[in-house]
Parts: sequence; C-alpha cells; structure tokens
Amino acid sequence: AQSSVTLFGVVDAAVSGYSNKAEDRNVATLLNPAYINRGSVTTSRTVLSNSGYNSSRLGFRGTEDLGGGLAASFWLEAPITNDDGAVGISSFIRRSTVSLSGGFGEIRLGRDYTPTFWNDAVFDPFGTNGVGTNLIATANGLVTPGSASAGFQANPNYVRAANSIGYILPPNLGGFYGQVQYALHEQVKYDPGTTTPVAPLNSSRTGGYVGGRVGYSNNALDIAVAYGSSTVGDNYFLGSTTYLQTANIGASYDFGPVKLFGEYGRSKLARDTVTVNLLPEPTADGYLLGATVPIGPGLVRMSYAQLKLDTHVRNPLLAQAPAPGAQKFAVGYVHNLSKRTALYATYAYLKDENGLDLTVGGPAMATALNGVPLSGKTSRGYDIGVRHAF
Amino acid sequence: AQSSVTLFGVVDAAVSGYSNKAEDRNVATLLNPAYINRGSVTTSRTVLSNSGYNSSRLGFRGTEDLGGGLAASFWLEAPITNDDGAVGISSFIRRSTVSLSGGFGEIRLGRDYTPTFWNDAVFDPFGTNGVGTNLIATANGLVTPGSASAGFQANPNYVRAANSIGYILPPNLGGFYGQVQYALHEQVKYDPGTTTPVAPLNSSRTGGYVGGRVGYSNNALDIAVAYGSSTVGDNYFLGSTTYLQTANIGASYDFGPVKLFGEYGRSKLARDTVTVNLLPEPTADGYLLGATVPIGPGLVRMSYAQLKLDTHVRNPLLAQAPAPGAQKFAVGYVHNLSKRTALYATYAYLKDENGLDLTVGGPAMATALNGVPLSGKTSRGYDIGVRHAF
Amino acid sequence: AQSSVTLFGVVDAAVSGYSNKAEDRNVATLLNPAYINRGSVTTSRTVLSNSGYNSSRLGFRGTEDLGGGLAASFWLEAPITNDDGAVGISSFIRRSTVSLSGGFGEIRLGRDYTPTFWNDAVFDPFGTNGVGTNLIATANGLVTPGSASAGFQANPNYVRAANSIGYILPPNLGGFYGQVQYALHEQVKYDPGTTTPVAPLNSSRTGGYVGGRVGYSNNALDIAVAYGSSTVGDNYFLGSTTYLQTANIGASYDFGPVKLFGEYGRSKLARDTVTVNLLPEPTADGYLLGATVPIGPGLVRMSYAQLKLDTHVRNPLLAQAPAPGAQKFAVGYVHNLSKRTALYATYAYLKDENGLDLTVGGPAMATALNGVPLSGKTSRGYDIGVRHAF
Repeated sequence: AQSSVTLFGVVDAAVSGYSNKAEDRNVATLLNPAYINRGSVTTSRTVLSNSGYNSSRLGFRGTEDLGGGLAASFWLEAPITNDDGAVGISSFIRRSTVSLSGGFGEIRLGRDYTPTFWNDAVFDPFGTNGVGTNLIATANGLVTPGSASAGFQANPNYVRAANSIGYILPPNLGGFYGQVQYALHEQVKYDPGTTTPVAPLNSSRTGGYVGGRVGYSNNALDIAVAYGSSTVGDNYFLGSTTYLQTANIGASYDFGPVKLFGEYGRSKLARDTVTVNLLPEPTADGYLLGATVPIGPGLVRMSYAQLKLDTHVRNPLLAQAPAPGAQKFAVGYVHNLSKRTALYATYAYLKDENGLDLTVGGPAMATALNGVPLSGKTSRGYDIGVRHAF
Repeated sequence: AQSSVTLFGVVDAAVSGYSNKAEDRNVATLLNPAYINRGSVTTSRTVLSNSGYNSSRLGFRGTEDLGGGLAASFWLEAPITNDDGAVGISSFIRRSTVSLSGGFGEIRLGRDYTPTFWNDAVFDPFGTNGVGTNLIATANGLVTPGSASAGFQANPNYVRAANSIGYILPPNLGGFYGQVQYALHEQVKYDPGTTTPVAPLNSSRTGGYVGGRVGYSNNALDIAVAYGSSTVGDNYFLGSTTYLQTANIGASYDFGPVKLFGEYGRSKLARDTVTVNLLPEPTADGYLLGATVPIGPGLVRMSYAQLKLDTHVRNPLLAQAPAPGAQKFAVGYVHNLSKRTALYATYAYLKDENGLDLTVGGPAMATALNGVPLSGKTSRGYDIGVRHAF
Repeated sequence: AQSSVTLFGVVDAAVSGYSNKAEDRNVATLLNPAYINRGSVTTSRTVLSNSGYNSSRLGFRGTEDLGGGLAASFWLEAPITNDDGAVGISSFIRRSTVSLSGGFGEIRLGRDYTPTFWNDAVFDPFGTNGVGTNLIATANGLVTPGSASAGFQANPNYVRAANSIGYILPPNLGGFYGQVQYALHEQVKYDPGTTTPVAPLNSSRTGGYVGGRVGYSNNALDIAVAYGSSTVGDNYFLGSTTYLQTANIGASYDFGPVKLFGEYGRSKLARDTVTVNLLPEPTADGYLLGATVPIGPGLVRMSYAQLKLDTHVRNPLLAQAPAPGAQKFAVGYVHNLSKRTALYATYAYLKDENGLDLTVGGPAMATALNGVPLSGKTSRGYDIGVRHAF
C-alpha cells in the first residue's frame, strides 16, 4: 500500500522579532484643554518562529488511476509548529479531501481552501506567511482565524471551509481555470420550526459558505477574480441572517527581470433581514502592489498595501468617525540553496490609522495605559530563517 | 528503516441526511380524559460525513521476520475525520499493538478490538458504518462510545480495550480460528484496604475486560461465537462489582448469487454482590438477518434487525413496563470503481418502540415539547459517498 | 517526495508492577511520649506500560545533500503511548528540528534535547526508561516533566528545550565532541518597563535555557561534562531571577566482558537578586555506578545510585533538618531477538530517606493516614516486555 502514498512537508524556522507601538490618540481639546497625552507603550518579542516563508506542514497524498481518464485521489495535510514541537499531526485542517477527477474536471469533498482566499496568497510576493503577510488577509482575521478583526465579525471560512463540496475545471482549457465551492452548515433543523432553541440564537444556518473563482494564465500573465459568501450568524425567529462577503481580483505579469503583482479586495458584513434594517454594513477595501526581482539563485521581494474601513453607519443621528485604515510595506530576500532549501530574510513596517490595531505579528498592541485606552500606531518585524521542504 | 513500514488508510466521505422524529406517547386516559397529545418534533440535518462505508483512518504497520518461523510486528492506526479535517493522527485508538507470532499463534499487546465486537462487524452486510450500522452495536453504545445507551450503563470496552494482552490462534487449524483477550484495569490498590479512597466509589477494579471468540470458516460458511465481560463499576467497601456481559453468535453462508448473514447477541448488566440484591439486571436481546447480492462490479446490501430490552425488575411491587425495543431496515448499493475506490449509497429506517431513542445517526431525538417528555418514534437516513483506500 | 523521508519508530510494551510504601516517620518522644506510630500505606498497581526499555515513538526525518559538503535535514519525532493508543502523533515534542550542516558542524533550530540531559541518558545502563530510570533524572522531575520534585522548583527545560538554537561540533575532531544550545524565552517585553503586568510576576524572562556539553570518546572510553542554566522564574519589579543550574559529568569504559558506567550530577536552585537574599539555594547531588555484561545475544544491566539534597538554609535561626535523600538499585536482562526486536526484564528497588517521595514509577506515595502525614519509605517495581523498532 505504501507505493500509493506520498509523504511531503515543509519545516520552516526563523528568528523573528516584533515591535508594536500603541499610542494615546487623545489630545487637549476645547472641551478638555488640560488633557495631557499619555504617550505610547511598545510591546516587543523575539522568538523562534515557524512558517516565515512557507507554512510548516506534514502531509500524505496519493492518486489512483481508475482507467478511462478517471482518477481517485486524497490529500491529508497537517499544520505543524516545528519551533516548539507542540503541534504535530493532530489535525488535517490545512487540507483534508478525497477527489474524483477526469475529463470533466475534479469533484473534491472535505476541508479545503476557499476560492476567495487564493488571490490573497497568489498575487502577493509574500503570500500569507511571515511578517510580510498580505495586509488584506490580515485585516480579514487571518492571523487568528475565526477571531474578530478590523471591526469585522469573525469569518471562520475566510481561509478554508470544512464539510465542503468543490468542483474544479479541468486543466486543458487554453489557460482558463476556475472552481466553485459549497460548504454545508451542518446545523440541526427543527420541525415544527417553533421548537428551534432560542439560545444560541445565531446558529441555525451559521457555518455555510459558497464561492467561486475564475482566471486566465499564460506564460507571463495570470489574472483571477473571486467572490464568496460565508454565513456568520442568523436568527430563526427574527428571520435575519448575516454574511461576510468577500470579493477580490488579482493579477501578476512576469516581465523577466521583474514580476509585478497587484490585488484589490473588498469584504462586507451584509445583513439579510425581513424588516427595515438600520444596522451598519461595514466594508473593508484593500489594495496591494508587489514586485519580485530574481538575482541568480535569489529573489528580492517587495510589497506595498493599503486598507480602509468604512463603517457605513446608516443612522443619520450618529456622527461618521474618521475611517480606520492601515498601510504596510515589506521587503525581503530569498536565497535558494536548492529547490527544497532556502534561506530568507524579511522586514515589514505597518502603520495603523484612526483606531486599527493590526500588526505584522508578535504580541498584541497594548490596549491601555493608566486607564486611558490606546490604539495601534506602528508595527515592525523581521524574519531571518530557513525553509526546508521534503 | 522506511522499507519496514507500510503506510495505509481510508478516506471515506459522503453527503448524509438524517431525520429523527420523537413523539408524545401519552394519550387521553380514564384518569386524564382531557389530555391532548402534543404531537411530534422532527430534528434533521444534512452533513458531509466520514466513514459511511469504511471507517476513515490512517495507519502505520510492519512485520519483521525473526527467523525460525518467529515474527515481530506492530500496528498503529488512527481514526481521522476527513470531512472537516479536525481529527488527524492525534491518537492510535483504532489499534495500537506490538506482537510476537509464530507457530504457536500470536501474542498481542496494546489497544485492540475486543473479541465480542467482531460478530457485530463481520456478520452484518453494513458492518458498523454509516446509517446502516448494526443495530445491536448501536444499542450497546457504539455511536457514542462510552456513553449510556438503551438503558444500559456505559461500556467503554464494547468495541476496543486498551492495555490488553491478547492471544490469537495460528491460521493453519483447518478453518478453526479463535482468540482470547485480557485487559488490565490499571487501578491503584491500597494496603491496608481501608485506606482505599471513598470517592470515587466505583473505580477500584473498573476498566478491565476479559473475553474470547472461536469460529470456523471454509469457502462458503463462516460461523463464530463470542463472550466477554467488561467491569464497569465496583465498590470496595460494599464488596459489589458491576459487569457488562456480552454474548453473541454470527454466521454467513455464501451461495454465490447471494450471501446470507445472521447474528444473535445478548448484553446483560450483571451485578456481583455479597448481599441479596434486588437491583435489576437488565438485558438487551438483538437479532439480525442480512444479505448481499453481487451484480457485476457492484454489491447490493440489505439487512433487518430487531432489538428488545428486558429491564428484569425484581421488585414485585413495581409494575413491569412494556419492553422497549427497536426495529431497523437498511438497503444499499456499492459500486466498485477499483479494489480501492468505490461509490456507495445506503438508506436506513429505524422504528423505536416503548421509549427507546435509537437513531440511524444525525441529531439526537428531541426530548421534550412544551414541557412534555418525548420519546423516539422513527429515524431515517441516507449516505451517498465515495470510499478511497490506500 | 517520498524518497527523501525516513519513517522510523519504536513500539515498546511491558507488563509492569509497582509497589510504593509510605510510612509515618514520627515516633514517641520525650515531648510526646504517648505517640503511637500509624504504620504505613502501600499503593500498588499492575499495568501494561510503554517505553520500559526504549521510548515509544514515531518519527519522520530526512537529509538533503546541498553540494559542497553542505546538507539540510529535518527531524520530527512524536512520543506515542502504544499501551492504550491515547497519544498518537499529536505533537513532535520529542524532537522537532531543521538543520544546516557542513564542515563547520551543525546549526539546529527547534525543540531538542538539552546538552545537560545527555549524561543522564548515556552513562546509565538503564538510561531514563522504565523502573531502572536514572535516579538523578528522576530527582530532577523527569517522571512528570515540569513538575516540582525533590524539593526543587519545576524545570521545564530539564530534558528538552523548545525554541532553541543549537550548534554541534563536526564529527571529525579525533574523538572530541561538543554542543551548545540557547533557547529563547519568547516573553513579551514592555517599554516603558513600568507597564509590565504585575501578575504573573514571575514570567518576563522565564523559559530560557543556555547550556553546553563537551566530551571525548574512543573505542573503549567515553567521557563528557555538561553545564546548563534554565530560567524558571523572575520578577521584573524586584529585579530578581531564579535559575535551575545543572552540572554533570559521566564516563563509561568498555573492558569487553564488562562495561562500567559512572555519573555525578548536581542541580542548584540559584537566585540572582539586587538585594541581600536570605532565601535558600537548595542543591541536589547524585552519583551513579553501573555495569553491563554481554552474554551471547543478551545483556545483563545493573546500577546503583545515591542522591542527597541540601536545603542550604541560610537563616541561622532555623534548624537544619536531616538531609533528604534516596538510594536506588536496579538489575535487568535484555534478550535481543534481532537488532530491532528485544525481550527485556528489569527489577528496581528504591529507598527514600528523611522525607523524599521518589518512586521507581506507578502510583504516587500515599501522603496521609488518619490525618498524619506520611513520607516515602520504599518503592519496588518491575518491567517485563518487548521492544520493537522500525
């Protein structure tokens, strides 16, 4: 049986440092002329980290030729924390699928990346690893999956969706590619509906996801657009449902001496109600520009990204606060010792605006000083490490 | 070292649906002529499931030839949940053994199936997987191992036993086969015994198991009988011990166009006391009939099973309630794309009688409606999936 | 990718028994002439154990030749509990490293053994496995890593350190070998320092380790010395830090018919303060003598070890209690069926003195009888098992 299984993985370790400064944004005003700004607090940390260039993992995969162009395959991939050894193959939450494929394309069942995640990873020179991680992904809660971030409700399906059924187009379409994915919410349905439990109110359809992505690539150009909707809350009795909708477009063009990257993404917390709804539907808009320059066995990487939130307050009596946002710049170098082994160094700088607390990694922003709330100002970090694949 | 290890597994995924109806079994009576029956509540769920045809797993095994007919071998097998990726190789609770074998048979140490479990799995066309799962196994708490079920106390050793020492007869006995297993309880013994802790009262010998199975198989016939006893509770100071005793017999006969299956099993909650004991010793009796019909690369499967509980109330002042029971019918089709890959569909229907809450899977029966307790009426379910082995 | 990965492991299972006797050490005195000694309590247990001869494990490792004498390698090794199957590959806490190596030696990143642990394992005929486990390692909390033992504060880095950077000398130095290791504490630093959280007080540098080991080996002789310091507590505001410092030396000499072993080790709870400190700095001194005698395919193993604590009470007003200590004797036989498979039996006897509660394994010493505190007297145990490596 062994011949049908491929064992593969990545062990990526780096010395990483982070320094995150939060500040008191209040100043003396006409109403409070005696206010003395409390200054700032910096939290910093130096660690041995994993996954600074590629995500550390260990996996098992295989394909069986069923004849007639048909194939069955499986893919089980675990995240591992090789810096401290704490997380082994305790789950296959990176990917856990079984597939049937043929001339018609591929049907894939299990836990897999969402279509909407790919543009973040593919069209950023730093992907979603290390201090250089795609700012749009960070704003959508990538760092702590499932946690609220950037004023948004948690989106447990931002990167991957469990219990999903996917369809992927076959590879021979003249450069066109595409996929759709539907993930079951697996919630219990009650009949008569009035027996639906009152608490927790917001779970009877929560967890589902539907999305798709189409693109075109030839030798130099790669461009793709994706859209997906993740159900993050609902209330059976009020008849309301809340979605996190993600749309993005990304492209890269390889000029040879330099390869350029760009991405634009928008996330929206949308509400579907049976009554007039005055609750806000906040949005986050982000764009990113990047470039890579090959130098012998090495690769210089750089990116710049900007993010802006719009709280979309609909109540005319409430003042519209200045829009929170962030900017990020990252630069790095990868030195390939072989196809499997590389040394790398990355530096990243992030500036928070109007109340955001995003970081490039490391400890959370300090939240208070002498009872005064603080909010993010800057975050800096570096990774110096080695990536070994097998 | 790699040449001595075989990596093997199963990735089985299906779309499964369940619909479980619980009803108010009370009616208007002479004592309460105005009673209005509250009706029923149906709980249903559609999921991506795993293990609908074969249990999803990933394992490592190997054998070393020691010369002279002697061999050493190991087997480490993990359950995995490939539908959501949540459970990886975090344990080897499916099987975790090291063995020495030779002409004398095999001595096996570790966690392994109990002898009493095999007849449930071998002599049911659906084994213990999916909505068609063996009803006798369901009644003994298979679905939620270790949980109380069917009026029985939990039997953590029903399917497997940890810390066991097993002996398996060699394979060359003219069709006869057999095995015995003894599992250590690993509880602390106190000397003097009066220093035994008072709480928890019921643990000083709990956890042990002893059982055996013998059978005979030739080309067409396979028949086996098994008996085992699992210690589920005891009280050092009262001198009482509680056992879950399981006895079963199963057989199959392959006529060629059709293969027939049958099983009868009894479980009993037995009490060993130093005083006269008026506590009940409930029993569960189940029987099962099944058949498979090969059709080209496919296999039609069907089964019918019945279960009856007897609470064995010994106190003559207590009325004997109508015996709880259940009936189950399952039908399915497996289409083999290769030896390793199959598509399958199964449908099952279960009817609860006199208070049992067994299901074919999915959400638990609703337990109450407007303050009136409900009990199981019917359970229906289906699996449509793919099984890929490697 | 499979060709670059080696899958390896050990499955070791034994029937083990333990019997631990704790006694009331008080006697009738002039002050309390009527005192009646309460006697003793024995706690015993028979189990199926793992790792009695070699630690049960499952791992993945590989090396890539990068050319020019340079190589990249990885090593991911999980502890497993094959007796009950409960612990699979849920972590790689035995070892989890990525390395670059060449003529200069090896740089290793991740979780690895500390240099100070090796002398316990290498210069004891029983290493640190089973009832014969090295007494010095037991006294330092090996049995329950991270737990306080023998009057010492917990040393989570006694056996291994996470987040470490190691350097190992190359193998071609005429028999000389050596290594150093530095493990990052990964604690958050606050600036201004006055914003450091008050609770937990003792964590702002806790977790770090630094240590080294040098040795020499030729055909018959092997000798090595090691020193390491693990930071186990500190208080930012008091400016105090607590270390567990370990120093040891070990040697073995192979005379052919017999191989002799010896080790001496000292641990100290050291305090670094900005003020005069009257807190004690307790030490533990242990030495060990051992021998192995090869007999055909077998090996007889024996060891004797002694341990003495010194509480180093500095306050002249406090009486110095009799020094707690322990003695241990172990004898065993290993019968090799092949290079990979062995049968083994070990017996060990341990005597606690003046209040120590060390055991050879199994249940903890009883701590009280009828309200009178007990302390350890003797501990006996055996392992009879099989070790299979792959």
